[in-house]
Amino acid sequence: MTTSAYAAPFDRDHARILAQWMELLAFPSISTDPQHHRDCVACAEWLVRHLRGIGFDNARLLPTPGKPVVFAERPGLPGKPVVLFYGHYDVQPVDPLEAWHTPPFTPTLVDGRMRARGAQDNKGQHFYALTAMQQLIQANALGATVKVLIEGEEECGSGGISCSMPAWTDLLRADVLLVTDIGMEGPRQPTITLGLRGLVSLTVEVAGPARDLHSGTHGGIAPNPALALARLLTGLHDADGLITVPGFYESAAPPSAAELLEARSSPFDAAAYRQATGVPPSGGERARPPAERLGFRPSIDVNGMRSGFDGPGTKTIIPATARAKLTARLAAGQDPAACLAALAEHLLQHAPEGLTVRVVEQGVGGPGFRLDPRSPWITRAKDTLRALYGVEPTQRWEGASIPVIAELARVSGAEPLLVGFGLEADSIHAPNESFALEQFRMGYLYVAHLLAGL
Amino acid sequence: MTTSAYAAPFDRDHARILAQWMELLAFPSISTDPQHHRDCVACAEWLVRHLRGIGFDNARLLPTPGKPVVFAERPGLPGKPVVLFYGHYDVQPVDPLEAWHTPPFTPTLVDGRMRARGAQDNKGQHFYALTAMQQLIQANALGATVKVLIEGEEECGSGGISCSMPAWTDLLRADVLLVTDIGMEGPRQPTITLGLRGLVSLTVEVAGPARDLHSGTHGGIAPNPALALARLLTGLHDADGLITVPGFYESAAPPSAAELLEARSSPFDAAAYRQATGVPPSGGERARPPAERLGFRPSIDVNGMRSGFDGPGTKTIIPATARAKLTARLAAGQDPAACLAALAEHLLQHAPEGLTVRVVEQGVGGPGFRLDPRSPWITRAKDTLRALYGVEPTQRWEGASIPVIAELARVSGAEPLLVGFGLEADSIHAPNESFALEQFRMGYLYVAHLLAGL
Repeated sequence: MTTSAYAAPFDRDHARILAQWMELLAFPSISTDPQHHRDCVACAEWLVRHLRGIGFDNARLLPTPGKPVVFAERPGLPGKPVVLFYGHYDVQPVDPLEAWHTPPFTPTLVDGRMRARGAQDNKGQHFYALTAMQQLIQANALGATVKVLIEGEEECGSGGISCSMPAWTDLLRADVLLVTDIGMEGPRQPTITLGLRGLVSLTVEVAGPARDLHSGTHGGIAPNPALALARLLTGLHDADGLITVPGFYESAAPPSAAELLEARSSPFDAAAYRQATGVPPSGGERARPPAERLGFRPSIDVNGMRSGFDGPGTKTIIPATARAKLTARLAAGQDPAACLAALAEHLLQHAPEGLTVRVVEQGVGGPGFRLDPRSPWITRAKDTLRALYGVEPTQRWEGASIPVIAELARVSGAEPLLVGFGLEADSIHAPNESFALEQFRMGYLYVAHLLAGL
Repeated sequence: MTTSAYAAPFDRDHARILAQWMELLAFPSISTDPQHHRDCVACAEWLVRHLRGIGFDNARLLPTPGKPVVFAERPGLPGKPVVLFYGHYDVQPVDPLEAWHTPPFTPTLVDGRMRARGAQDNKGQHFYALTAMQQLIQANALGATVKVLIEGEEECGSGGISCSMPAWTDLLRADVLLVTDIGMEGPRQPTITLGLRGLVSLTVEVAGPARDLHSGTHGGIAPNPALALARLLTGLHDADGLITVPGFYESAAPPSAAELLEARSSPFDAAAYRQATGVPPSGGERARPPAERLGFRPSIDVNGMRSGFDGPGTKTIIPATARAKLTARLAAGQDPAACLAALAEHLLQHAPEGLTVRVVEQGVGGPGFRLDPRSPWITRAKDTLRALYGVEPTQRWEGASIPVIAELARVSGAEPLLVGFGLEADSIHAPNESFALEQFRMGYLYVAHLLAGL
């Protein structure tokens, strides 16, 4: 296999592809913020028009209780497999806005990278796939039936699609579920992801004082909600980094001997990790190596915390409230609803004397799952990547979540195939998210060759 | 003694007094916020003009490295005592602004109360004293020499006055230091304060990740600054509420047998406390009763905490930083600088693996102190209050701080006399601060009778 067959049309259409991608990136489709609801819908409508334009005549919006889902289908030749492609058009919030070097929804090319919120996650990674489909259709080289499903709530729990999906069993039926919303180990190291973690979230609030109290008149008498929240959060882990929530670990599937062997086969490069992130891999369970923690173990993180005064100078108060946002990543086997309930219950049961603890928001993402590395689809993806890069693809278990994948696999009957081109340098979920044009191009080539081979 | 002698002129001039007080309250003199520096100076200049107008011909501003200090002196008769009156014209910040029912710097009369930031703390409580001086001067009834000192940085550590005061020894020399910046037990329970706590403050920041990290890709591997901050704050107290910072308690003066007896003489009303504050007195050291904790023991509180995302919905990040603002109240005997250093050192020494801990702001307020209840000045104040209210005044040790009082007493050679008319319902340091006109009037009568008796 050579890459030239599809590289030439890509390079020829380079300017047009970039211009369209930038149109897509300009939508501030922040799904978690109700103020951006209309921007999300506008983004979905743009995708429908784009899909129609490239050969998916029946592209349309599927309504859900949340954001609409973009759906399109292009029938292939009889006897060919059915490919279901998954992506999401929503993006993360952009704060802190002042940390962006260019406006997050004004896509900007800087040093061979596209910078914008969503440049990689996931607009970049689905737009190269759509571009690959477009080129195959133009070249009359697409034999498989391709279904495209792009949801609008991945960044906030995939509530809408999860609710509506059970009714779409026939619509979504497929053989393979192509997911590119994922990363690779390094710029020249193609990677197949053999598992994802599940996700649940909640916001906990500690309250009590009728108002902010004077820290002099009340210090040492009134219980302090901020200190109480700190104690509550600290109590979620023991000194070894193990989660203390009763029952939380119960149904986590332990890794098989083969999985452990694979996970340990490539040593975790702590120096490279520190170089990329600024920190050593010193979080989580101390007794396990990093790759095992990420692939096979749950984690609980604080995403944000707020209480009282944070302006310049001092304000001598005992704050009336303190709040934290938490997410937990779940191992395969763990039931998200049960884990969320256990976490909430643990927080409520540890309410400090004189204060109240409330769970004010909660969200159930999907469960985690792990795939069988001997599957023919995985072999096919490996062959494609090996041919493209000239190196043996790495297999790994990813710590992140795509909430809806497990359920989508169940409803569609398709086997997930997780290969994407994200890199740590892309700063997804952070200021100045960007995506290298070279990665975009490799993603395009991977999808083009994988689909062309069917 | 009857109250009528000074009640009549007060009631006659009621409208003018209120109008002038409202002028004073309209200045947004928030000392901790550099944006309000000019408002602070304008407020000080207004006070100088007002003092000149009521008979303090030499009223003027004393420059300091920070906000200017308002100073005025009116010589009395030979052989009469010299009274130094202390107040502050600066106020606390007003956030959360949306919680105010009327704008904080638009003084508004509601149900017999003046509502504004500073209505009580301390503009109300020094303006009734100035009004009392004004009436005595008009009635030719002021025999004592009166010095007025109103600083502009009480709410942010009294840095300016503390720095300049040593040069003002002759200017400030006095027999008694009259302080009304303080509260009373209840609306009909006059109170003499026998001590104040000291104050230090710092802001601590935990950092490490080069940016916000994806909580899926890094959860369970990257150390989480918000969780680490929570653990750091939790580690400041043990399970019994005792401060764990090594050496922190070392020089705290234990209460004498007489002080303990006095503190235990009136039982702490936990139900009333809960009614007033929304919480039981369950904070601080479990082994000691509330009144002892407040009067004789230090405390450490979190005034504010911020990390990561706090918008609507979820943002699945490990935040790059987490920050908390802390204040400690100190018992008499504790050296503020030493306590601050011990606290900072403790936080730095407990930096979690892979993250950095920095103390990014720190402030030393004054030390705490306790007075001898057998002093003749205290006896005189008791007599005045007993005559005004017809009940025996309570004595108590206050948990709050007026940073500069201990040093001011040392420089001036004057003995502090702490009687004020603040009540819990005034919501000082909180939204909708207000001060009952009746309390303002009683404060006025107390100062008038105390000074007239000299």
